[in-house]
Order: sequence, then structure tokens, then C-alpha cells
Amino acid sequence: MSNRPRGMSARADRLVTMSPTPDSAVRTYIEQHRAAFLDDLSEWLRIPSVSVRPDHAPDVRRSADWLAAKLGETGFPIVEVWPTEGAPAVFAEWPSGDDAAPTVLVYGHHDVQPAAREDGWDSDPFEPVLRDGRLYARGAADDKGQVFFHTLGVRAHLATTGRTAPAVNLKLIVEGEEESGSPHFRALVERHADRLAADAVIVSDTGMWAEDTPTVCTGMRGLAECEIRLYGPDQDIHSGSFGGAVANPATAVARLVAALHNEHARVAVPGFYDGVVELTDRERELFAELPFDEQRWLHTAKSHAAHGEAGHSTLERIWARPTAEVNGIGGGYQGPGSKTIIPSSAMVKLSFRLVAGQDPDHIEKAVRAWAADQVPAGIRSEITFSGATRPCLTPLDHPALQSVVRAMGRAFDSPVRFTREGGSGPAADLQDVLGAPVLFLGISVPSDGWHAPNEKVELALLLKGVETSAYLWGDLAASWGHAP
Amino acid sequence: MSNRPRGMSARADRLVTMSPTPDSAVRTYIEQHRAAFLDDLSEWLRIPSVSVRPDHAPDVRRSADWLAAKLGETGFPIVEVWPTEGAPAVFAEWPSGDDAAPTVLVYGHHDVQPAAREDGWDSDPFEPVLRDGRLYARGAADDKGQVFFHTLGVRAHLATTGRTAPAVNLKLIVEGEEESGSPHFRALVERHADRLAADAVIVSDTGMWAEDTPTVCTGMRGLAECEIRLYGPDQDIHSGSFGGAVANPATAVARLVAALHNEHARVAVPGFYDGVVELTDRERELFAELPFDEQRWLHTAKSHAAHGEAGHSTLERIWARPTAEVNGIGGGYQGPGSKTIIPSSAMVKLSFRLVAGQDPDHIEKAVRAWAADQVPAGIRSEITFSGATRPCLTPLDHPALQSVVRAMGRAFDSPVRFTREGGSGPAADLQDVLGAPVLFLGISVPSDGWHAPNEKVELALLLKGVETSAYLWGDLAASWGHAP
Repeated sequence: MSNRPRGMSARADRLVTMSPTPDSAVRTYIEQHRAAFLDDLSEWLRIPSVSVRPDHAPDVRRSADWLAAKLGETGFPIVEVWPTEGAPAVFAEWPSGDDAAPTVLVYGHHDVQPAAREDGWDSDPFEPVLRDGRLYARGAADDKGQVFFHTLGVRAHLATTGRTAPAVNLKLIVEGEEESGSPHFRALVERHADRLAADAVIVSDTGMWAEDTPTVCTGMRGLAECEIRLYGPDQDIHSGSFGGAVANPATAVARLVAALHNEHARVAVPGFYDGVVELTDRERELFAELPFDEQRWLHTAKSHAAHGEAGHSTLERIWARPTAEVNGIGGGYQGPGSKTIIPSSAMVKLSFRLVAGQDPDHIEKAVRAWAADQVPAGIRSEITFSGATRPCLTPLDHPALQSVVRAMGRAFDSPVRFTREGGSGPAADLQDVLGAPVLFLGISVPSDGWHAPNEKVELALLLKGVETSAYLWGDLAASWGHAP
Repeated sequence: MSNRPRGMSARADRLVTMSPTPDSAVRTYIEQHRAAFLDDLSEWLRIPSVSVRPDHAPDVRRSADWLAAKLGETGFPIVEVWPTEGAPAVFAEWPSGDDAAPTVLVYGHHDVQPAAREDGWDSDPFEPVLRDGRLYARGAADDKGQVFFHTLGVRAHLATTGRTAPAVNLKLIVEGEEESGSPHFRALVERHADRLAADAVIVSDTGMWAEDTPTVCTGMRGLAECEIRLYGPDQDIHSGSFGGAVANPATAVARLVAALHNEHARVAVPGFYDGVVELTDRERELFAELPFDEQRWLHTAKSHAAHGEAGHSTLERIWARPTAEVNGIGGGYQGPGSKTIIPSSAMVKLSFRLVAGQDPDHIEKAVRAWAADQVPAGIRSEITFSGATRPCLTPLDHPALQSVVRAMGRAFDSPVRFTREGGSGPAADLQDVLGAPVLFLGISVPSDGWHAPNEKVELALLLKGVETSAYLWGDLAASWGHAP
């Protein structure tokens, strides 16, 4: 998934939630099984399941088969490899046997980003290496490690509670095309909506604020994307002969973009903020409590000044406020030197990040109406919207979120804070199709180097993931179980 | 040179200047010599002097030599081929012998645009064809025909006045790189400024309004060009992770361009209009008297609506008002589909057409100061200006202009109206370096197809050019001669 902000200072200032006592039996069980767990994970990491590379398609299939077999060994009574038009996904299900138990669906992916030694890796990206408490390999954090901690987690849950099945109806969906943009995922979810039905979705494909700051992500922004093309003269015309007397589509596209934001850097499209769920005072406090260092964040953003909607902090701007950004703009002559033309056409690619309460269809209507109003006489416009993603937001008082926070707090023996993601992801498809809230349980940290050379996972955090998983299912069943 | 507006209706409504009586002796002389004149011109047109094609460099040199020889035959006592770093120019001089005579420099060019039969020509572009009173060939109108009419013109002047030298000190400079942007012309003029010194420059490389509407062009716009590059993040960054919280250079470039014009389509750069010579009421009346049809003009402009500075007509906008146009804009992802980035940089190429009273150096300073004010925090800007061209404008009451109008009026036996050119050209270099006013004497019409297939010149108009030239030198000497 997308990057998450860096810029944390050395320590958190204040408890956010009290952490219940950890369970020494769980820790003992994990300690006893960690060697085999790491051996298994390493075996999986050796499969170069690079979904964007057609020549690796057999590896992606092998990765799915490997995982399916391992989930069977783990004890899942139902394990299936689901084909798609692209790479296969793995589905597993382990019913609780308890009528009152909630159903939880875990999401992850088994495909990985491309990687090659010559990109700057210190070792073969597909030959895992343990060094200084870190496991280096492509996929160690994104996302095989984070999928895999659930296997030992559920075993620890059973072993330490004496159960033969999890306290919740546990389902897993592990897709094989996330690094390729999940082109077939929504169709897959729609096709198998009955099988995937759940009371909550747990996405294990995100991260925490920092090694010493365990956090739970409570939402991701949605996305609407469009391309606007403006057409002026039927062909490029001479800017001397005609300049000053006809509308220039490059000027028009610039004026359109300039009209996107007002002087407070708020999006000026009428209706854009309709329904936006504003941050509560408590949420703003929680954001402000994170040990955020703007200079460090700017360094990560490779940027030279913070800039955004007036009245909001940087974290609020990237996590909780909707945006309109230009991804590309073009028109006329862009080569060396000059060419005295009025271009025939110009275009802009815009993306809108959406927050809870915003509806991509409404945004499309609002943008179309706004754009039509901006286009001057003599210019014709064409707007194309591409696939939209809805925002996800888990209310802080949601009982399943409380369970995740308690389980993580026990594992980390530390207060748990809240973050969000500025990006967008396939989790939204699960939310939309299944009608279930999406929660995020990830133990990766910014230094893990997703999509970069020398990707790694911190072993200590990986095992905290196992431990969180071990606590989570019992907590969810106890605090959120249906009346029998 | 640049295109000129079309859109004339069938007839002019009102006399602009009274036309003096034509001279039957001149007409008889021209009639007697027209066949040889056309044979000579055709011979010149057979030389494919395409300056942009390196493989035609020998042809361009041959064209210069051919013209030099012909000017010698015409009677010019001084004829020289001047080399440049590119193609050679031809210089000729014919002193009047009269101390009171003004000195006039005629400008034209002997190179032509590329042309090939397969571009849509009905006949070989370098094998002139006479058909329906038109001579078809590349260069027939632009510009060999218009240079060449002066040769027979000066012979007719001498033959009908009994003189052995022209009534003015007559000089010609015929360059060989106009169709390549005259890259070495200014340096050539500076090098030979003493030889080229003149009281007035007559440019024969423009056109008239229409076959039935003889006009004299009284000015061309100047040109200042720049490229502005804006730099944001050090590399493209993820618009989900960082969007809404840092400045986007594509948005910034759009806001910059949008700030170029105010709501009245006036250029909003402070100081831009400093010194602009406003149209007099008489000039606006003269523009309004031209038989202009906006729908036909829009058709020529391949545009769908007129748009420009409030309070001015289309002709005023293209001829007499300064402009700011976007020639190109670009930044970020412009390929198919979408890419959720905040681009690292964006750029815009701007050109400013300037009118009398505007100084390109002042415009550069004004644009630099304005742009610096527009750039938001976190964005770095770079502005590069390329070579500028000054505007030319001949006052309507200039005695040399009055001579051109009278000579043309006698030749056409018709009132002469005034136009301007919206484009810019090397004539400005002559004005700047020589400090002489620039006048325009052209007999081409919009249908001649400059730079297009089937370029032609109307024989009747070509001979009116000869006749105008025959009347002009005597008129100039009589009405504008120095006190002896």
C-alpha cells in the first residue's frame, strides 16, 4: 500500500489507551515456535511472486499454492485458490463453531514489488537474510510477513485457550495483484461476496508510526480521478497572426486548475465538501499528540515547505482532509526553444482524495458541473472519470477497533495511538461490497523500505504482530460477540 | 512572414485616400516587358532555395548568385553577395546622384519554404505554371515575386522619367534565411550598418487585405518569449501520501498562467502596458472601415469564438494590442491512464506580442518581477528569456508612408487602406539597427497560400507591384527629398 508519514520524535508524550497485561503463555508459545515460523516465512519469501512481471506469473501461482498448503497445515479446514483473470487469490476459512461468534475477514496480498540485486540490494532480494534482528527480503514487510503473522497468531490463540477452533469465524483473503493495482479484486469480491461476508475486515497491509510508537490506522482516503481535455482551434495556429483574439486552450486549462482552490487552499468546486465528516476535537487532539516533526516529514516528502488547507495541520491535511491535486498537465509545444503557436488542445489529469462522508459519484457530478462553468466560449471540453475508490474510516468507538487496540496494547505493552493513511487501497472494495467496517492491523514501520531496495521487517515487531493476532480473536469474540 | 487575416467582404465601403491618376507610359512599358519579366522570375523560381534543408544549401547559394547577376543586368552598379554563417544575402545599391535624394532600402528574401509535389501540389512546385492569370510555384508570392517586381519597377521608373539613375538612392537587401527564422540576419545588418544606412526601409514581404482591397501594412507586433520552470518536490511524490500538504508545481504553474490575464482578458503583469501607444480614434475608424467578416476570420483561425481584451475589436486585438499567450505548458504524467503523483516540476512557455511603445527589456523585467510574486513557498522558479523582437509602427502621417500610399493608389487606381501585421519579423532588426522607419509594400493576398501547397501569385497584382515600384521612387524624392 502507500507510504505513511515519517517524522516521529524519540518518544510519545502521553498515554492514549491503557494497555492490558500481556499473557506469558502466549509469549512462551511464540518463543517456542518462532524458529519454524521464520523458516516457513523465509521459504515463502524465496518465491519471487512479482505480479507486474508476466514472466513471474508461474511464481505468483506457486506463491498462492504455497500459502494455501501452509494455511491447511495451520489448521484452516477450508482453503481454496481462487483464480482471477490475472493472478490467483487464496481464500481460507475456519469457522468458530460458536453461533454467537462474529465473523472476521483478514485481507493481505501474496504478490510483491519487483526487486533485483543491482537496484541497490545488499543481498539477493529473494534469498532472505537475518541480520541485526531484521529479516531482509522482498515482501518481508509488504506483505508476506504481515499476512503470515496471523498463522502463528491463530495457533497461539488456540494453544493458550485450549480451543480447537478460533473464537471468531476467521476468514482470510490474500490477493495476488495488489502490487499491480488490484485490477480484478473488486470483481473477485463481488463474485464471492457470500463466502467473504464478515462483520469486520482486518487489513494487515499497513504500518505503525514508529518502532516505539505502536499505532492503529483507522482510515484511508478515497480517490476519484479524471482527465479534462480542452479543445480550442482545430489545429495549432500562429500566435502572432491570431494571438489575443481567440481563446487559448492552454490558458483555459490553467485557469481551470487555478480555480480548483481558493485563497485558503480549499477546494473551490461547489459541493466538494458536501457530507465531509469533520474531525472531532478528540481526533484532532489525538493527531496532535503524535510525535510529529515537520522538518523530518518534509525531508521524507522531498519537499521544501508545507502548504495546504488553512486551519489544518499537516497530518490533518494528509489523513483527514480531501484534496484536489494535479497529477499531470500538458498542451502545446514542450520541446527545446520556442514555437509561436496557440495550441489546439490542452489537458489536465486531476485526482481527488476523499474522506469519510464523500461519495465519488457526487464528486464526479460536482466536478463535471464546475468544469463546464469554467470553460470559456470557443473551447470544447471532454471529461473522463476513471475508477473511483471510496474512503474508509473506522469510528474510534467501534467495538472491533477497541479490540484491535487492546490486543495490540497487550502485545506491545505500550499505549496505542491512532493514525490514518493518506492513500487509497483495495480495502475500500471490501468495505463497499461486503458492507463491513475495515480495520487496519499492521506492524511495519517507515524504515522497512516498501517498494525499495533492502526491504526488511523488524523481527521483534513481526512477533508482536503474531502476539496481537493471538489476543485479538478472543477479545473480539468476548467484547463483540452476537447474542447467542 | 506570418499569415494575415482573411474575412473580407466583397467591396470596400468608403475611400480612405484619393488615388492620383495612373501613368499610361508606365503601364505601356510594363506591358512591353512583362513577358521577359515573367520568364526571368520563372527561371529564379526553378531554383529550389529551401533554406531549412541542408541538402538545398547549394540551391540557396545559386539563388543568391542568380539574383545578384539579374540585379546587375537591371542596372544596379553595386551588387554584392554577402556571406553569413548560414545562407548568403544579396546586397545591391544604385545611387541617385542627387545630393537631396533620400535613401531607401528594400528588404526581401530569396529563400523559400519546403515544397514537394506529394504535399498536395497540382504541379511541380519548382516548375512554374501559368494558369488562369496566376503563376503557381513555391516562392511565387513568398517572396521571390515580391522582390522581383522591384527590378522591372525601377526600369519603368527610369524609362518613363528619362533618368539614368533612380530618383532615390536605392538599396536592396535580400536575405537567404527568412524561412529559417533569420538566425544570422541581425548580425549581418549590424556588420554592414554603414552600407545599409537608409532614411526608410521598404519591406516587400507582406500582403494586402484582398484582391479588391489594396492596403498598406503600417506595423508589425514585437515579440518577447520566455520559459518559466517551477520546481517542487525533489522527485515525483505520491499524491495519496503527501497530497494536500505540499505545494504542487503543476498547480502553481497553472495559477501563474491564470494570473496572466484579468477578468477583462487584459494582461495583468504590472507595468506590461507601460508606454503602449494607444490607437487614435482615426486609426480605430480605419480598422473598422475594413470589410471584415468575423465568421470568415474565425474560419481562417480554425477557431470557434472570438475572445480577447475587452473594449477592442478582433482586428485591434491582433494588430494593435499586446498579448500574452501560452505556447506550451507541461508537467507530471501526460500518458494514458492515471498516475497518482505530485510532479516534481512543471513549465510554461509564454510569448508576448508587443506594440509600439513597448520595450522588450522592460517587459522582461516586469514579467520576472510578476512571476517571482506568484510563486508560492516551497516552489523554486527559473525564468529564461530568449531573443526579443521590437514592434514596428509607421505613423499614418509619415511622408514616406504617404508616398507608398499614393504610388499604390495610382497603380491600383483605387483607394488604399491600412492594415497591420499581428506577427513579428526581421524588419524590426532593420528598424533597430539602422534607426529608420519601416514601411511595408506587398501585393500578396491571403489566397496565395504562403507555406502551403499550390502557392501562387496573381499576375495582375504582381504587375501592380511593378507599377507601384515605378511610381514610388519619384514620389519619395519629390515629397521627402532633403533640402539640397
